[in-house]
Amino acid sequence: MLGDRRRPGLIMKLHGYYRSSASYRIRIILNFKNLPHEHIAVMLNRGAQHEDAFRSINPMGLIPVLETDDALLAQSPAIAEFIEEQHPQPPLLPAGHIERAHVREMMHTVGCDIHPLQNLRVLNYLRSEFEQDDAGIERWCQKWMGDGFAAFEQLAKTRSANGQYAFGDQVSLADVWLIPQVYNARRFNLDLTPFPTIVSIDEHCQALAEFSRAHPSKQEDAPPT
Amino acid sequence: MLGDRRRPGLIMKLHGYYRSSASYRIRIILNFKNLPHEHIAVMLNRGAQHEDAFRSINPMGLIPVLETDDALLAQSPAIAEFIEEQHPQPPLLPAGHIERAHVREMMHTVGCDIHPLQNLRVLNYLRSEFEQDDAGIERWCQKWMGDGFAAFEQLAKTRSANGQYAFGDQVSLADVWLIPQVYNARRFNLDLTPFPTIVSIDEHCQALAEFSRAHPSKQEDAPPT
Repeated sequence: MLGDRRRPGLIMKLHGYYRSSASYRIRIILNFKNLPHEHIAVMLNRGAQHEDAFRSINPMGLIPVLETDDALLAQSPAIAEFIEEQHPQPPLLPAGHIERAHVREMMHTVGCDIHPLQNLRVLNYLRSEFEQDDAGIERWCQKWMGDGFAAFEQLAKTRSANGQYAFGDQVSLADVWLIPQVYNARRFNLDLTPFPTIVSIDEHCQALAEFSRAHPSKQEDAPPT
Repeated sequence: MLGDRRRPGLIMKLHGYYRSSASYRIRIILNFKNLPHEHIAVMLNRGAQHEDAFRSINPMGLIPVLETDDALLAQSPAIAEFIEEQHPQPPLLPAGHIERAHVREMMHTVGCDIHPLQNLRVLNYLRSEFEQDDAGIERWCQKWMGDGFAAFEQLAKTRSANGQYAFGDQVSLADVWLIPQVYNARRFNLDLTPFPTIVSIDEHCQALAEFSRAHPSKQEDAPPT
């Protein structure tokens, strides 16, 4: 999305990719915080993340990277905490310490225990080095998503106020991490019927403009449908 | 470690395992914050994390879990941020927003891009489902540690003040995440010569009591050497 260009020195750039769930998270956050930003597509499907131009922005060769006036920031949880500290309104973390820890626990259940295992570079390695075909890859992804969603479902069942959002009765970083993972789960044909709370949260979040505008299908670099 | 029992209602319990690098991180943090705690061993080598008794503490079946007077907290980055908010002194995050983001970026480079890929449950799956032997497992671990360390090395080279600590001239969560990963790298025979800054940081941190007391070999549940 091309953001507000009236303040050229202040506009942030998000180096990302339409289908990357870590980029998707940051798009949702920037929408909630009402922060205009320019989207710089890093075409993972053409290996642009490995080129020198991008490695000079992030030596890890991973997206997203948030480019501000005075910094290049990588790693989506670090970017999320940065935005939360710089732009606390509206809050995406609750006020109490224990409540914040519970939201971050749910966030990292997705971000540490599910997502890294189905990153593109990992799936490529499984194909090329461990000779896995599409069926093996799908089984692998379903295994980690299924295990992680089972835990998330149990947490959300007790922590969600009414099945609308993952924690309490407001959107938090727990939802911001969950929704892109649900998108991925559908891509990899995970059966979501054992996770009714997650499905309910997904429906409620998708109804919000901040989430729907961030959807991969709405991005400039998405292929035409 | 059996902590200070003079305040029985206040002592925290850390459910962990001597060799788990996520548990190792939290031990380091508790040492820095001078927070007495009781260590509850969850014997991963005997599958204790899958038993109902532990699943009731953490549905994800993963360690560490910090048990406080009024909460059970899982996911090491969530626990780290919780302790930092509750017990800010001595700080393990710098004061400035960008500096904090840079420390968290380094922390999550280890926590998201390296560690989840060599978790026990993942290695078990690679053995049983993708028929990998010790050599395949070692190659897999070395691949992700090597890629992640290459990026961390480049970040630390410019951000470390003098090669003592990963960021600036003080211990931060970047070191807390790095050091247990270096321990793992040695377990999996990763050649560390391409990473002189990381090796230097490891040497300096290991010289501090807060790190050395947290070392896996010093824990009650470690096997006798």
